[in-house]
Amino acid sequence: MSEKMTRLKALLAEVSALRQAQAVISWDFETQMPEGGATAHGNQLAVLAGIEHSRFTSEEIGKLLDDVSVELDGADPDSDDVRLVQVTKHDYDRACRVPAELVDEQSRAASEAVVVWQKARKESDFKSFAPYLKRNMDITRRLAEAYGYKDRAYDAFVDLFEPGMDSAQLDSIFADLKAAIVPLVQEISARQDAVDDSILHQEYDPDTQLRVSLDIAQQYGYDLKRGRLDKSAHPFCTSMGMDDVRITTRVIPNFLNACLFAVLHESGHAMYEQGVSHSLAGTPLETGTSAGVHESQSRLWENLVGRSRPMQDFLFPRLQQAYPSQLGDADVETFYRAINRVSPSYIRVEADEVTYNLHILMRYELENDMLEGKVDIETLDEVWNERFEQYFGLTPPRAAAGVLQDIHWAWGGPYIFPSYTLGNVIGAQLFAQAHKDMPNLDDDISRGHFSDLLQWLQTNVYQHGRKFNANELAVRITGEPVNTRAWIEYVRGKFRPIYGI
Amino acid sequence: MSEKMTRLKALLAEVSALRQAQAVISWDFETQMPEGGATAHGNQLAVLAGIEHSRFTSEEIGKLLDDVSVELDGADPDSDDVRLVQVTKHDYDRACRVPAELVDEQSRAASEAVVVWQKARKESDFKSFAPYLKRNMDITRRLAEAYGYKDRAYDAFVDLFEPGMDSAQLDSIFADLKAAIVPLVQEISARQDAVDDSILHQEYDPDTQLRVSLDIAQQYGYDLKRGRLDKSAHPFCTSMGMDDVRITTRVIPNFLNACLFAVLHESGHAMYEQGVSHSLAGTPLETGTSAGVHESQSRLWENLVGRSRPMQDFLFPRLQQAYPSQLGDADVETFYRAINRVSPSYIRVEADEVTYNLHILMRYELENDMLEGKVDIETLDEVWNERFEQYFGLTPPRAAAGVLQDIHWAWGGPYIFPSYTLGNVIGAQLFAQAHKDMPNLDDDISRGHFSDLLQWLQTNVYQHGRKFNANELAVRITGEPVNTRAWIEYVRGKFRPIYGI
Repeated sequence: MSEKMTRLKALLAEVSALRQAQAVISWDFETQMPEGGATAHGNQLAVLAGIEHSRFTSEEIGKLLDDVSVELDGADPDSDDVRLVQVTKHDYDRACRVPAELVDEQSRAASEAVVVWQKARKESDFKSFAPYLKRNMDITRRLAEAYGYKDRAYDAFVDLFEPGMDSAQLDSIFADLKAAIVPLVQEISARQDAVDDSILHQEYDPDTQLRVSLDIAQQYGYDLKRGRLDKSAHPFCTSMGMDDVRITTRVIPNFLNACLFAVLHESGHAMYEQGVSHSLAGTPLETGTSAGVHESQSRLWENLVGRSRPMQDFLFPRLQQAYPSQLGDADVETFYRAINRVSPSYIRVEADEVTYNLHILMRYELENDMLEGKVDIETLDEVWNERFEQYFGLTPPRAAAGVLQDIHWAWGGPYIFPSYTLGNVIGAQLFAQAHKDMPNLDDDISRGHFSDLLQWLQTNVYQHGRKFNANELAVRITGEPVNTRAWIEYVRGKFRPIYGI
Repeated sequence: MSEKMTRLKALLAEVSALRQAQAVISWDFETQMPEGGATAHGNQLAVLAGIEHSRFTSEEIGKLLDDVSVELDGADPDSDDVRLVQVTKHDYDRACRVPAELVDEQSRAASEAVVVWQKARKESDFKSFAPYLKRNMDITRRLAEAYGYKDRAYDAFVDLFEPGMDSAQLDSIFADLKAAIVPLVQEISARQDAVDDSILHQEYDPDTQLRVSLDIAQQYGYDLKRGRLDKSAHPFCTSMGMDDVRITTRVIPNFLNACLFAVLHESGHAMYEQGVSHSLAGTPLETGTSAGVHESQSRLWENLVGRSRPMQDFLFPRLQQAYPSQLGDADVETFYRAINRVSPSYIRVEADEVTYNLHILMRYELENDMLEGKVDIETLDEVWNERFEQYFGLTPPRAAAGVLQDIHWAWGGPYIFPSYTLGNVIGAQLFAQAHKDMPNLDDDISRGHFSDLLQWLQTNVYQHGRKFNANELAVRITGEPVNTRAWIEYVRGKFRPIYGI
């Protein structure tokens, strides 16, 4: 390795440590911290974010990136070093456009907003949160201006969370999906009685929910020597380095799905992070490549595997054992249909696979409207409810089940909701290819044998970290860029039989 | 406030945030982290320690300290600002003498050594830990050289953990104590049968131990909105700012004292940190003033209050209620005598009040010997056992109950064991004065009414943070510098009656 590359990597490793330190403090904030610690933790995060930013955007790193690019001229374009320099340059150019003061301001604002959001959500009091959302949105708008964009402010962020994509592409993906979902939902709605999910709504002991969920995640391959499960207001996964990747969940005592599928979802994120090659540790390549590809893995393990028919042959007997009085007399087919019930509902993270993308479409539209000043944030709760009525035919009974349900807007921008939909689409595209490559996959899943699938994902996706972006990965693995075809086939092929269409 | 003072405080607040961030990551390391996280956490701590050091020792802070000193010429010498500058200058001068690389090296070495120590202690395998202790000691010796000292290397550290004291003063304090303890232990040893502590060695449910201990700490005044209790290999207290001060304990199922008195001990440290004036937040004055004064508070709440006769009228009925089958038939006098049994034992943190200072004396001597190269660290386990035999008439059965029992040497220097003895001495000196100022104190304690004592300590000690050093506080509160008289009177007055001497 050249002297310059060695120096570059040493500087990047410090930046990585600063980023990981923030992950530890944020995790503590969400899961362990006594309430008195909020202000100090907020300060710590702001100071570390500021130092991380100023270290990463140093002239020395900029100069080294240029020099090392020259050194690497003619090297294998898919090699770790070439990709490292390419991805880091993209990050560097973006980061240099944002003044350190704005980063600091955003971090402090987010810390305060999260505390207010937690209370507001508990009390379903949107008005107390509105000023903080407004401030976050002002900061986001200034961030978009700093990053720069061609036509729409949103594009400033698409380039961050999904490099290689733009809002035009997102619009077209959402249009495809809307065209497929709306008629499917209508067909299903005409046969609502076909599925009964009442067995999910019994009393399920919270500690047992946590234990069983974590058992399944471990069976998937989530490594607890390099991870752990905690409770938090909103489930999340966070990486403090590839050997310490933690997940959280929430537990609803009278609804089996909330904890179980949140854990399977977050374990997908976590296995991705745990699977990144150690050769990329301490560099900007050490994490998952984009929000959409990350979400493809959480959705794959939550839905494409977790809610599949083969999976229930493995999962359901274990749940029956854990909850003999609730599930002992039920049969696996009833359970499979119950966990796949399609029904317009208030909460995104509990939404079925068919309507889920409508939740995202709505948020994508509202974020664009907020960003472009087309909506008054003071009355966003009302706007939310009106639009929800339009898409879902329902009015949320309280803000906690409406505009206040997600933590994301408390965190502030960049907004990544579209990535959840991209995740569904990419997940289905990869999973279809996995089935082609492994004809026995369904059998494996029904026996609780997940290691071949994990190995396939490890080889094709996880090990690469951020070396390849979403479209590049899709082309390498499936021969095509990201597209909706596999997801639409999947959702029709699965839900029409369930509803006897 | 002058512009320069404002700027100085802003820079110091960043340093404070960096220090607090390390406290969060260290706490996570000891209590929550999955084992895979050790290397990355170690890196994070090393990077943060390096940045903290380089920020604190910046030329700008040095210049500002000089300029602000001039501005403050003639101001009240006890004012926050004058003390801030004085204490910060002392810290600054010390910190500037240590190269950043050495700080970084020490931090990384400590992180690795703690992991090895944890395993070595579990397996009672000193040899695996010896190379790490040797490396820590090499680093410590280089630190002492960097700080500078007159006669003995140890003085380089006394000036750090007990500003205003030196090793000559420590030698004289230890000599006083030895002269008082040795005959007292002999008198007591002749009457060993006078106290039976078998009631403490029954099965005590671990979760109940934690709950009851925390209840008592809360009754003392430990604020759980700004703190929490966890388990760790070695009990400790850590401050992430005065509004987030956490304690840990360990639980031994068949020994009631270990958890209970560790929690009371750590709650004393924690109330001190929680009690520092908010006006000192974000400055070097925001924590307890020295290791010795800190330990005076943990020892005061653990022993002078917690093991006192009046306390048992409040504590014992609560323990009886929690453990009816173990303690229901016992009487308070038996319990009081049991928890105050004097007996040479292996483990420092479980030692009685009389022999405790002998444990410290032994460590103080060994640390001096290691520092001055008078002992071969490879065979320190043997040296430990020989010396233990001399002082206590016992040979530790395994390294976990001998040389490996404390985490401190894994952390590396500066070594603070003497501060535990100073804590006993200072605690007794303050407590004697508290009794003079509050004639009803014993009655209050017997009724579980601790708020007047807490308020007295708050006013006289806690609020000041690091404004005054140990001798200054002692003079302000008792009219005399730190001395052993009160402790010797206390220990004779308490233990002679218990043993019928």
